[in-house]
Amino acid sequence: MANYKAPMRDMKFVLFELLQADQKMATLPGLEEATADVFEQYLEAAAQFCESELAPLNRAADEEGCTYDAASHSVKTPAGFKEAYQQFCELGFTSIDCDPDYGGQGMPKTLSFPMMEMMNSANVAWAMYPGLSHGAYSAIHAHGTDEQKAQYLPKLVDGSWTGTMCLTEPHCGTDLGLLKTKAEPNADGSYSITGTKIFISAGEHDMSDNIIHLVLARLPDSPKDIKGISLFIVPKFMPNADGSVGERNSVYCGAIEHKMGIKANATAVINLDGAKGYLIGEVNKGMSCMFTMMNAARLGCGMQGLAIGEASFQNALTYAKERLQMRALGGAQAPEKAADPIIVHPDVRRMLLTGKAYTEAGRAFSTWLAMLLDVEERATNEEERKDAADLVALLTPIAKAFMTDNGYIAANMGMQVYGGHGFIREWGMEQYVRDCRISQIYEGTNGIQALDLLGRKILLDQGQKLRKFTKLVHKFCEAEAGNAELAEFIAPVAKLNKELGDITMAIGMQAMQNQQEVGAASVDYLRLLGHLVYGYFWARMVKLALAQQNGNEADFYKAKISTARFYFARLFPEVEALKLQLKAGAQSMLALDAEHFGFY
Amino acid sequence: MANYKAPMRDMKFVLFELLQADQKMATLPGLEEATADVFEQYLEAAAQFCESELAPLNRAADEEGCTYDAASHSVKTPAGFKEAYQQFCELGFTSIDCDPDYGGQGMPKTLSFPMMEMMNSANVAWAMYPGLSHGAYSAIHAHGTDEQKAQYLPKLVDGSWTGTMCLTEPHCGTDLGLLKTKAEPNADGSYSITGTKIFISAGEHDMSDNIIHLVLARLPDSPKDIKGISLFIVPKFMPNADGSVGERNSVYCGAIEHKMGIKANATAVINLDGAKGYLIGEVNKGMSCMFTMMNAARLGCGMQGLAIGEASFQNALTYAKERLQMRALGGAQAPEKAADPIIVHPDVRRMLLTGKAYTEAGRAFSTWLAMLLDVEERATNEEERKDAADLVALLTPIAKAFMTDNGYIAANMGMQVYGGHGFIREWGMEQYVRDCRISQIYEGTNGIQALDLLGRKILLDQGQKLRKFTKLVHKFCEAEAGNAELAEFIAPVAKLNKELGDITMAIGMQAMQNQQEVGAASVDYLRLLGHLVYGYFWARMVKLALAQQNGNEADFYKAKISTARFYFARLFPEVEALKLQLKAGAQSMLALDAEHFGFY
Repeated sequence: MANYKAPMRDMKFVLFELLQADQKMATLPGLEEATADVFEQYLEAAAQFCESELAPLNRAADEEGCTYDAASHSVKTPAGFKEAYQQFCELGFTSIDCDPDYGGQGMPKTLSFPMMEMMNSANVAWAMYPGLSHGAYSAIHAHGTDEQKAQYLPKLVDGSWTGTMCLTEPHCGTDLGLLKTKAEPNADGSYSITGTKIFISAGEHDMSDNIIHLVLARLPDSPKDIKGISLFIVPKFMPNADGSVGERNSVYCGAIEHKMGIKANATAVINLDGAKGYLIGEVNKGMSCMFTMMNAARLGCGMQGLAIGEASFQNALTYAKERLQMRALGGAQAPEKAADPIIVHPDVRRMLLTGKAYTEAGRAFSTWLAMLLDVEERATNEEERKDAADLVALLTPIAKAFMTDNGYIAANMGMQVYGGHGFIREWGMEQYVRDCRISQIYEGTNGIQALDLLGRKILLDQGQKLRKFTKLVHKFCEAEAGNAELAEFIAPVAKLNKELGDITMAIGMQAMQNQQEVGAASVDYLRLLGHLVYGYFWARMVKLALAQQNGNEADFYKAKISTARFYFARLFPEVEALKLQLKAGAQSMLALDAEHFGFY
Repeated sequence: MANYKAPMRDMKFVLFELLQADQKMATLPGLEEATADVFEQYLEAAAQFCESELAPLNRAADEEGCTYDAASHSVKTPAGFKEAYQQFCELGFTSIDCDPDYGGQGMPKTLSFPMMEMMNSANVAWAMYPGLSHGAYSAIHAHGTDEQKAQYLPKLVDGSWTGTMCLTEPHCGTDLGLLKTKAEPNADGSYSITGTKIFISAGEHDMSDNIIHLVLARLPDSPKDIKGISLFIVPKFMPNADGSVGERNSVYCGAIEHKMGIKANATAVINLDGAKGYLIGEVNKGMSCMFTMMNAARLGCGMQGLAIGEASFQNALTYAKERLQMRALGGAQAPEKAADPIIVHPDVRRMLLTGKAYTEAGRAFSTWLAMLLDVEERATNEEERKDAADLVALLTPIAKAFMTDNGYIAANMGMQVYGGHGFIREWGMEQYVRDCRISQIYEGTNGIQALDLLGRKILLDQGQKLRKFTKLVHKFCEAEAGNAELAEFIAPVAKLNKELGDITMAIGMQAMQNQQEVGAASVDYLRLLGHLVYGYFWARMVKLALAQQNGNEADFYKAKISTARFYFARLFPEVEALKLQLKAGAQSMLALDAEHFGFY
């Protein structure tokens, strides 16, 4: 059965050596207490919980799944889930980066992101329950009235209540402008909400006393498009003034979906039948309120890809060192054994290194993004906050799509290392593939991420945000221009960084002729920029590793350098294909009439 | 729920227009009756059966799976499987390309391959039962004594008995040299076979009167490596002289595996406890006998990838034309509807066209391979037979690995087109992904295929077989050099064809220094050659389509040309990445010590 061990060494490398997060935290008001020691204590505690409580539940929970009882509209989560959640709350893990005014511990996202990675590696379906709650916390914290905050936040922060986000309807997912759920004003200032929501993750369960649904709906006189949507708080049980739960609201789980993966997370159909709801934020501004949750959810989703890639890699590595099969070409490497361990075979190494190279770059990138979120929220310098916000906005689609696509690649490679055993459920490797697959779809498909990146984040502001990133890359490359040892890693990054401007400009010009060019270019473009990001982080990591390669932990640093070499030799070359594909433009995608795709 | 319609128009295009298979069949002794009319009748009958009998069982059978009863060591297949098999036998589908001397219909493989595609598209788990039988038929036909043939073949041909191939053991899959199953000679010339086999597809079920296991085992005094393995016929029930079944043999199913996909096919643990077996072929020549089955199984496995890619594409196409979501960038294309059908979006088209381009090229390629099998078996000219045999040997790993890797890509893209609904089991799209995944693993992992291709099929004979293929490509490109309309399609193929020689030579030279270079290059090399094959077939198909694009079926031929353009613009550029990766050599894969892959 699959196992999990938190990659503490690499997390500390990223936090303290690469990003010097402890030093940065010291400059951010309110985070002065987030020292390296404190980080380590939290990380150790999270590792302990994830390794010994969450990971052991993962396999059996996939088999058991969630159970829906139609008579009571209730969902039973798999054995152990409720108890693990109880413990999680008691350990204070629900409140780590929450506002101290509402019972939170006020710790940085730079800390909570690596913890989120651990939870997702250990048990992604479980991790989604507190994950969705945190999204609801963020939306209410950002957009709720003081009264709403006082009423809901302490409960979400201590974990006794959980939350959801209710967007999708049967006929609309990507295109929320089509949504039909109605919100009719009541005399008391509340709303009666009626409609059907689907694909509601953690939508119903037995782990908390109450569930706070955040629901998108349309007022009767609102515009019929995306500009006519408002956001509502719809509690499962109406809260009493004393914080206890009162009357049952008419929001019910009507069914749960049978899915490919994340089977232990209840994906609910939520029926609202005149359910009582409270407006959050302004009327018709629901989409922008929802994006507070959505942007966080997209980063969280990217972390799932990263985390599952790590878990699959770890297990494949263990197996590759134990499984004996064939001799190395050129001669036995373990002549005392019946055959060589399969890690001697280059292609097995290729699969392992692919997982390792994508995961380590993704960890560096996502932890940096988390740090930018802290900077955006707290830096005293306004320009620094603005730059951080722009970089986060620009790179969120990369975090979501590139990290999940690479996570899926890594999960599949890990499974492949097991050969036939990878296909057998008890080994747990195929579960990683199934669980990871949804991360490419939900919170906006990876195709939508790519459109958001190229269309909204880049072309719309004529590359201003993009230049903030490419300038960082340029500065780094320039500063290291004299570093001969680093040259092999800098050269490809500097080259792509330079080319990216022209490529972006060319797409922009084409798009002025035909906007469909943006949609045709977007997915390849996202991967291209993704490789620039990963290449940049690999080069930065190697710089540190070169300086330490003869020190106490020489093996660790040498492995970093080796993995970087593999990345540039074997994964980064994808950019050459992408550039050609982008150059080809939309024509070959648009030429075929929809009616002529199939002839039978 | 997913549906299936046999791609008859494209199959006829490949058979009669591209390959002129009917004319070729007329030249092959014994196949004179396989006229175009006969082909069409068979294909229509198969399409009817697959669309109306097999496809409707596919979804429910995945949910039900197979059921093992420990008390009776028996396996119950899902509802409808037995009845469909009964009908399949009655329709004569088990005997189509079998030897008339044993009740077969003597039809060509050029016909049976497209039929195999249909079965695998409709219901891959079901198709494996007759598929494995056919492998057993082939091995006995090629290596059995006249007595063995008389005893077993008629039953396998009429389908009343089925067969399996029993290779893998818990500690060995790829490395059969390690196998432990013992065969001890009995006084009557039979053998007592003892051991445990795992991952035996169609290993136990309720669909036939008897199951003929072909089992690899080792005689007591045989070499302890791959050269000491022999092949045995081990029937579940001992056959009586009159063809009825007699005594139960001590070969029992001990369990069935719980798997990611192909759940409706029983993947059995087979325990042999002094089971009575009969040597087939010579002592210690078991591997070469097994390869008769294995080569056919590899092609069959490739057909699974092709077939599932087709099925996923078809359903995604239907969905993309129906699902309304967002407006096309640049303006509504279906203003009368609430939103545009998603097929207007370039990225949705990219996903559909990827499935379409890989599937149509794979269909042309695999049907050509089937025709080469017929030529190899029957052509009157020895050189022609030899050439065909060499091309089949060379290209079998491409058919197995490239077609299944591309099938998995296509299955995932089809699922992605459905968005969140793709992840929900009832839609059937995620089943294609799960069912397809095993095709990259079994019958020799795709990594092993790549080693077989580069190491055994190419470097071992110093490129002789490879040159037989590249010469075909060269001749075609040369002959069409003056065809201006075709130039855009010929140029990339001719270029890669030329480069391939140098690339192969360079790897060969490196391998002389370090044999591990072969393993490091193999997977990328296989994809490179795969694109040469597909590029060649796309260019050939376009040549025909250009000539017909203003005729009666202009839309069909124009779609061929559009799809080819998409292939060269958006998929073929992968070769540029592959060339760079190959050039990088093994170093970045070998540098890292096995103990330094992970630090925690």
